[in-house]
Amino acid sequence: MPASKAAIDVEQSLPSEDFKAVFRGHPSGVAVITADAGQGPVALTASSVASVSAEPPLLIFSVSALSSASPVLSRAETVVVHFLDVQDIDVAKLGAKSGIDRFAQAQTWTRLSTGETVYDGVRAWVRCEIVERIQAGESKVLIARALQSHIERDVQPGQPSDALVYHNRMWHHLDERSAIDHGIAM
Amino acid sequence: MPASKAAIDVEQSLPSEDFKAVFRGHPSGVAVITADAGQGPVALTASSVASVSAEPPLLIFSVSALSSASPVLSRAETVVVHFLDVQDIDVAKLGAKSGIDRFAQAQTWTRLSTGETVYDGVRAWVRCEIVERIQAGESKVLIARALQSHIERDVQPGQPSDALVYHNRMWHHLDERSAIDHGIAM
Repeated sequence: MPASKAAIDVEQSLPSEDFKAVFRGHPSGVAVITADAGQGPVALTASSVASVSAEPPLLIFSVSALSSASPVLSRAETVVVHFLDVQDIDVAKLGAKSGIDRFAQAQTWTRLSTGETVYDGVRAWVRCEIVERIQAGESKVLIARALQSHIERDVQPGQPSDALVYHNRMWHHLDERSAIDHGIAM
Repeated sequence: MPASKAAIDVEQSLPSEDFKAVFRGHPSGVAVITADAGQGPVALTASSVASVSAEPPLLIFSVSALSSASPVLSRAETVVVHFLDVQDIDVAKLGAKSGIDRFAQAQTWTRLSTGETVYDGVRAWVRCEIVERIQAGESKVLIARALQSHIERDVQPGQPSDALVYHNRMWHHLDERSAIDHGIAM
């Protein structure tokens, strides 16, 4: 293919400012991911955690190369994904703030018998094995298989709960007042 | 490696019921993805859309093999990701309901000059090129590069907006009343 043809075929990417402006308006649940590859635990707050498959149980999330947790998440064989609700907002803030020791308060976390670190009292956590890492620009997309879970505060199908949402640089609280009407299971 | 050793090393996956119970409490923004591989357009409502990288602008989402849109999304070179707010709840319901013609009302969608279908009036949409498809259980994880965007209703940094959230089989509306306090940019 001549160079001129290739130049026509390859469309330019959207400018990053425009891309960020779209995602600014896209809310997300809040998760904190911890990992330890042998040199001590790291944590990051992630808005990208999503279920991919229930059978086998697989979830995805992405990690920016700019995250301080990135080098450890590139090597760790297992992670713990913490699923947060409104009661866990301090854990959410802990993972989102940069330049702090996220494990300074010894009483707020424990180690599982398998070695992973878990923040105490969060709504739910899932211990996972990383099964694939895919480079995507300067970030990595990780696919993880769920091995073990703990639910501290169960959410009953269709019933209100105190969910935590991150949206446009603010935290939001879902409850009966924010509900619009009964939805459709996706 | 003897079979018995392998059996010890490979941990069993979390039962799918337990996995679903965790994600039931994890809210998400709402997006509808349309695609056309030459045999007519398809649409699905997705809770897994996340930004992965701004430079280059990459996003991810997953598609279950059970989705009626799955065969077309396995072949289409481009897609349009629609980012919905509360005003777009009818589009969200359209993509989530099964067994209906999602393009029956001719006035609700148009075709771009590049051929893709776009629902009219949604908060924002991004036309993307699929750059990678990764098999994950019975689902596929798609990585898409953003080419073009349109923002119908802009969301200013840190300002309230009428965001739409899907959580535990219900739709929720984010506004000033649901805001907890000023968060930390992640």
